[in-house]
Amino acid sequence: MTPEEFRRIGYELIDWIADYREQVASLPVMSTVKPGEVRAALPSTPPQQPEGFDAIFQDLNDVIVPGLSHWQSPRFFGYFPANAPLESVLGDFLSSGLGVLGLSWQSSPALSELEEVVTDWLRQMLGLSVNWSGVIQDTASTSTLVALLCAREKVSDYAMGRGGLQAQTAPLTVYASVHGHSSVDKAALLAGFGRDNIRAIAVDELHALRPEALESAIQADLAAGRIPCAVVVTTGTTATTAIDPVKAAAEIARRYGLWLHVDAAMAGSAMILPECRSLWEGVEEADSIVVNAHKWLGAVFDTSLYYVRDPQHLIRVMSTNPSYLHSSVDDQVRNLRDWGIPLGRRFRALKLWCLIREQGVEGLQARLRRDLHNARWLADQVDAAPRWVRLAPVPLQTVCLRYEPDGLSGDDFDDFTRTWCQRINDSGVAYLTPAVLEGRWMVRVSVGSVTTELEHVRQLWTVMRETAEAVAAEWPVPTSS
Amino acid sequence: MTPEEFRRIGYELIDWIADYREQVASLPVMSTVKPGEVRAALPSTPPQQPEGFDAIFQDLNDVIVPGLSHWQSPRFFGYFPANAPLESVLGDFLSSGLGVLGLSWQSSPALSELEEVVTDWLRQMLGLSVNWSGVIQDTASTSTLVALLCAREKVSDYAMGRGGLQAQTAPLTVYASVHGHSSVDKAALLAGFGRDNIRAIAVDELHALRPEALESAIQADLAAGRIPCAVVVTTGTTATTAIDPVKAAAEIARRYGLWLHVDAAMAGSAMILPECRSLWEGVEEADSIVVNAHKWLGAVFDTSLYYVRDPQHLIRVMSTNPSYLHSSVDDQVRNLRDWGIPLGRRFRALKLWCLIREQGVEGLQARLRRDLHNARWLADQVDAAPRWVRLAPVPLQTVCLRYEPDGLSGDDFDDFTRTWCQRINDSGVAYLTPAVLEGRWMVRVSVGSVTTELEHVRQLWTVMRETAEAVAAEWPVPTSS
Repeated sequence: MTPEEFRRIGYELIDWIADYREQVASLPVMSTVKPGEVRAALPSTPPQQPEGFDAIFQDLNDVIVPGLSHWQSPRFFGYFPANAPLESVLGDFLSSGLGVLGLSWQSSPALSELEEVVTDWLRQMLGLSVNWSGVIQDTASTSTLVALLCAREKVSDYAMGRGGLQAQTAPLTVYASVHGHSSVDKAALLAGFGRDNIRAIAVDELHALRPEALESAIQADLAAGRIPCAVVVTTGTTATTAIDPVKAAAEIARRYGLWLHVDAAMAGSAMILPECRSLWEGVEEADSIVVNAHKWLGAVFDTSLYYVRDPQHLIRVMSTNPSYLHSSVDDQVRNLRDWGIPLGRRFRALKLWCLIREQGVEGLQARLRRDLHNARWLADQVDAAPRWVRLAPVPLQTVCLRYEPDGLSGDDFDDFTRTWCQRINDSGVAYLTPAVLEGRWMVRVSVGSVTTELEHVRQLWTVMRETAEAVAAEWPVPTSS
Repeated sequence: MTPEEFRRIGYELIDWIADYREQVASLPVMSTVKPGEVRAALPSTPPQQPEGFDAIFQDLNDVIVPGLSHWQSPRFFGYFPANAPLESVLGDFLSSGLGVLGLSWQSSPALSELEEVVTDWLRQMLGLSVNWSGVIQDTASTSTLVALLCAREKVSDYAMGRGGLQAQTAPLTVYASVHGHSSVDKAALLAGFGRDNIRAIAVDELHALRPEALESAIQADLAAGRIPCAVVVTTGTTATTAIDPVKAAAEIARRYGLWLHVDAAMAGSAMILPECRSLWEGVEEADSIVVNAHKWLGAVFDTSLYYVRDPQHLIRVMSTNPSYLHSSVDDQVRNLRDWGIPLGRRFRALKLWCLIREQGVEGLQARLRRDLHNARWLADQVDAAPRWVRLAPVPLQTVCLRYEPDGLSGDDFDDFTRTWCQRINDSGVAYLTPAVLEGRWMVRVSVGSVTTELEHVRQLWTVMRETAEAVAAEWPVPTSS
């Protein structure tokens, strides 16, 4: 495709995306396609001859868009906000359009240095000290894997340079709360620790890690001859945005020589608000932090910020140095290939740079404060409504709730909760994610899409009440035991 | 930013990218900025108030573009081709613009299913059998890490579910040629195997792995009580695009029960040409393959295709199943979170889909054949020119060479080679990557940018001759010993 053709089709594509964003509020939020339906609508073999973009736009409209759940809808309350505001989208366009690659610094100096600048901007915005150095990874799953690899090598005194983890005699152990993200378990398993050496620590009534349970588990492992290696605390758990006590965990980590990783993938964005920073008090004592700027903050996915206090340790664990990547300036620059798993990298800093510049710090703060207010509003409605139960504190933008008609219990109650939630999702009016909290299904309302205003939260509350109450009215009365 | 503002600025941005691509041939290919220069030209603190895109475009022109090495230049012959043709760029724009995320299938069915369709298209284009299932990872570094994790768990009978790699008594070992990519070592180290358990296997005079050396190493490890676990063979090494003998390695891997991973990150693209497929004869016997569609083929980075013969094994190693990702259709769909490390994923299939449709298979084949021809042309010139030496076969698009004036040897010869190469790079006329081959610096010419025609290769050859001969003329005559 020539640049001239790109101009013409590029304009069309800009319009197509603008139209999509203008209309997204009117589309059913959750796709209702059946498994295999999209695949069946597409050719099973590649075209031998060129096809034009007209055919591509046609398939986008007819097949792809109906097969999507619309994360940018103002009525998207599922999972977590994965905002892709249009100013950040343009930044990502620049990355694709420039088509440059980061390998060594030399391969594209501005790619490396803008990443250095922008991760430092975000450091300042989060209220972190100058002791932290940042780099962009793809996701928190990867950031947490990198953290546990660094912990493993620190505690084993760089066993990777000798016999590796398989030469370990006393097993290394990893700790996280029972509400830690699934990626923590996955990272520990991939890093080779083994299921037997992962400890799920009990939580308190607010679903936050209990420090005394953490310390007991560490002591039990020490007594059994194992070597406590790393603890992951979560600032904003997935289920309820519970806030683990970072400071207490940091004291324990320091006392017993563990690596402390703070999983602030979700709630990290909130730290651009000074009034939220008490939520992660003690974070300066951690060894590593992950903050997903591609969630609430609004850098286009994938923009997972990974901060470390000791970049030299990270580089030692991650570095490779083949001759074709040598350069005479290696000691004066950051070679970001040595800050994570992949050798090559996109120009990812652009999407965060454009976001921060176009919005300004104050613009981003205002939006997040709006969302905190809207979530608080919903929490208040739930608290005031009969039979509606709020299941967890609302420190941020997620409200966990149930509707509890008389006489429902056990699996029947779970079926009821999932039924009304599914009915809302199937209707296309909103998208909610049900989840299990302490053995019982509940519904999470995750507020924070860029386009979600209070009116959308009000509409959701109306729909939830109407739907849950309608399902309750038609629900078979349980036979008394 | 509203959709209306996005239309206006989006058009500007399309024009800016089109202008960039039109002018890229006239820009110095390698950036000549000094370390820290880009960083120093940018504010060290984030803006509190919004700035417009006018300011961003200004910085792009004044600071960012001069700080880039231009991978899309027709005179880029460095590293490897990392093509980002504009039809694939538009596909990636769609991904950013839609802003949907893949977690479970349910979170965006079309995202999952288009990835299934397009990775299967590419499977067919590569001439692989229906026994292979594909998924998109970010880079070959990650794909190879996934491969070695799968090997580790297969050979250890899923130790991750028990004591992990650290419970291993007899060490697991990994094999690759001395010309294997640095990411193989890195993956083995991150997976916990340890430096002591990585074997660098000798190569033959064509820089390809010697099967008998592989078998000897395996036998030595077995005799010492170690457990051979995985072998990585490379189809197109980074230094010289050497071709390891896949079939011979596969026979050895089968005989001794090793996992066989084929690193075709570079040369995999060539397999869309039936006449190239003999280069990886035996590939059907492998367990996993990586093909970087973001290199020569031209899907915008990051599009690393990872193919496996046993997806159930991959899923068992990579799966997590938290309640908020449950869905009633889990047994009927692919949940791509269980096919790699990250939980979330971009809609990456779009950039490969648009590339294949806009070019057609035949269009892509024609371009790659052009590049094979151009590299062959250069090889012939080198072969015919006095004092010019071609150092390796040219099975694909990379030509390795030196200019050898009389009387140069040792470090002096290395200095000479790096000097003339650096002089070309500094001139901005072309970008070449020097590398070490068998202890001696040489220059790699990697042909294959989308816009590189024979005329650009001709120009490069003229510049290389003039520059190397000029440097030779002014080079101090070595004092005879």
